[in-house]
Amino acid sequence: MNNLLSDLRIVEFSAFVAAPLGGMTMAQFGAEVIRIDPLKGGIDHNRWPVTGDGASLYWAGLNKAKKSVALALDKPEGRELAKAIATAPGAGGGIVLTNLPPLPGLDYASLKTARGDVILLRLIGNRDGSAAVDYTVNAASGFPLVTGRQKEEGGSNPVNHVLPAWDIATGLYLTTALLAAERHRGRTGEGQEVVAALSDVMLATVGHLGYIGDVQVNGTSRPALGNDLYGSFGRDFPTADGRRVMVIALTPRQWRALGRATGLADELAAIGARLGVDLDTEAGRFAARNAIAAVVGPWCAARTLAEIEAAFAGSGVLWGPFQDFAALVNHDPRCSTANPLFAQIDQPGIGRYLAPGLPLDFSAAPRQPTGPAPLLGQHTDEVLSGVLGLGSAEIGRLHDLGIAAGPAG
Amino acid sequence: MNNLLSDLRIVEFSAFVAAPLGGMTMAQFGAEVIRIDPLKGGIDHNRWPVTGDGASLYWAGLNKAKKSVALALDKPEGRELAKAIATAPGAGGGIVLTNLPPLPGLDYASLKTARGDVILLRLIGNRDGSAAVDYTVNAASGFPLVTGRQKEEGGSNPVNHVLPAWDIATGLYLTTALLAAERHRGRTGEGQEVVAALSDVMLATVGHLGYIGDVQVNGTSRPALGNDLYGSFGRDFPTADGRRVMVIALTPRQWRALGRATGLADELAAIGARLGVDLDTEAGRFAARNAIAAVVGPWCAARTLAEIEAAFAGSGVLWGPFQDFAALVNHDPRCSTANPLFAQIDQPGIGRYLAPGLPLDFSAAPRQPTGPAPLLGQHTDEVLSGVLGLGSAEIGRLHDLGIAAGPAG
Repeated sequence: MNNLLSDLRIVEFSAFVAAPLGGMTMAQFGAEVIRIDPLKGGIDHNRWPVTGDGASLYWAGLNKAKKSVALALDKPEGRELAKAIATAPGAGGGIVLTNLPPLPGLDYASLKTARGDVILLRLIGNRDGSAAVDYTVNAASGFPLVTGRQKEEGGSNPVNHVLPAWDIATGLYLTTALLAAERHRGRTGEGQEVVAALSDVMLATVGHLGYIGDVQVNGTSRPALGNDLYGSFGRDFPTADGRRVMVIALTPRQWRALGRATGLADELAAIGARLGVDLDTEAGRFAARNAIAAVVGPWCAARTLAEIEAAFAGSGVLWGPFQDFAALVNHDPRCSTANPLFAQIDQPGIGRYLAPGLPLDFSAAPRQPTGPAPLLGQHTDEVLSGVLGLGSAEIGRLHDLGIAAGPAG
Repeated sequence: MNNLLSDLRIVEFSAFVAAPLGGMTMAQFGAEVIRIDPLKGGIDHNRWPVTGDGASLYWAGLNKAKKSVALALDKPEGRELAKAIATAPGAGGGIVLTNLPPLPGLDYASLKTARGDVILLRLIGNRDGSAAVDYTVNAASGFPLVTGRQKEEGGSNPVNHVLPAWDIATGLYLTTALLAAERHRGRTGEGQEVVAALSDVMLATVGHLGYIGDVQVNGTSRPALGNDLYGSFGRDFPTADGRRVMVIALTPRQWRALGRATGLADELAAIGARLGVDLDTEAGRFAARNAIAAVVGPWCAARTLAEIEAAFAGSGVLWGPFQDFAALVNHDPRCSTANPLFAQIDQPGIGRYLAPGLPLDFSAAPRQPTGPAPLLGQHTDEVLSGVLGLGSAEIGRLHDLGIAAGPAG
């Protein structure tokens, strides 16, 4: 966390990955991010991974450093309170982030009536309003059909990604959009509605990476290549001790380093002459990738990971070992408090564990450790009092009527 | 494109995906983004996919709407010009984005000497300065080992993602960081250096999604599940006509819709009683996923994609077909100029094809079609003249000395 955006207040009506990540990113910049959920929590409140007690590590991870307000959003009075919080005065307020279908009174027109300069950032599935989630967008993207090996080589496409990459990209498009819209408001006084469609993020990315042009201009598209890098040299190899390493030569410098560090420079150079390709080019290395792998593979297979690490240390070779989540967490020094990205936090209902903050270091805004995620409703009273100015008798009435709830339920 | 940030000038020294995507995103907001490359282009200038003539569709895709300046960055005079462009006066100037090792005179201290409020956004591999790219960061992330099927089920992990997801997320963290730093500068007059490590973006994401907590709190981590959704119901099924569909029931509403639309509600409900799980919960549907698939699979297998589409239309079922890049481009109406995300552009050296702009719609800033990527050096003279105020004799001298180059070389 830092305090670069501590004058902003964002009200979030959200679930799942993209919108919560967007809000949490703002919270990591010090913004006051108020996530408003139904009394029993949003539809992602129990999402996996969970602890043995059913507490969601996922929810805790994507809502760190936010405030949580629980209101009866199924009742008009609950929605009126939510709207009042979302449109409360203040130069940094009046910013709403959502991926949920708009509730009555919480659409852009209604919010704008309450606060003329409101900014509403709205994530939808498809542009036509139909539903889409990372899984369906990914299926349509073309990527699962070129992930893993080709069928003839024992693969079984489609292969879905496990990282919800479209959601993550979309969450960060939303933070970019939020700051662009807030900048515009600061200069002109004008709010606006910003709409992002998850499928448009996929379509834009497929185009940006050249795959639309490949089909339209070349009439082709790239095949599944297993773990090979497309258009240059990169492949995974087994080691003598049962690990796997990714070895890459994107640049001529990395290519020469690979020859030097392995002592295989002459054998590798001979490939170019034999196959008639220029191995100093990416296209040449890609064309010769099987021959290169036939030289590099036995070298890796004859060595343990530690031996490979020693041989490549300081060599300029671009490489890295594969590891599972347990090895990443338990043995990779980057995943520890030695990395200022991380803090040990006490997460209520879960326990003490390692929590990442913002993966950005600002020289003019010192890093502070991230706070934990709130308990559901933890800040209901604080926000009703601090943002709306309600007194304790009124807040008590809202609890009694089942309009507002604190963390006890 | 829109004009929300048209008063900003960003100077980019970059290659590959993350930093170019960051700069292009700013260009899509109307910012003047000047990519400065060596005379013969950056190390990504010929990256695949390429056309039959070797023109990079990838480069064209990630540099749309930028200006291109070609300078001899290996010579002091070329670097001085680059520095002068990067630190030229103007409220919206003095913003530099790079993922390349700093050249002499282009590090933060030197830039700051030339312009006290400069903002430098610097992407590095690992925090300790060692190299890392999407492929190595992904290998370390844990995700490739849970992508695809488990070994016992015919899978062969690790499986690399094909989408450079870490690069894409990082590019969008950089745009968020840029706007946060520029906002701070606008309020305080203070510039700063912002550093993002690609591996930190990975580590933060693994933590945000709950996988660090899973290892530290639960002592476990999720297995490879093929294309199954983790923690609820979602799986891919073959259709009668050789296609595959992803069918998902994240929410109780989607679960009930699936039963209704397939006419299998009773059979699905029976699973809950038989297995003793509550299918109205995500955990229950996940536990019963094989039994659910045994009911839904034959239904899909007995129908063509068109029949499934007809049965699910308007039903509330969350689903989608898998398609390859060619089908996406040639047959998906979302990937056409019917979608305002896209424009047909004439890309010099490549031809006419469909180019996406910004996947965000701003009500206060009308969308304009994206411009094409520049030719290498296309704006060298324009920038030397317009930004630095050099006369044509001086610009001619720089060309003659091999310090500056236009698109002809």
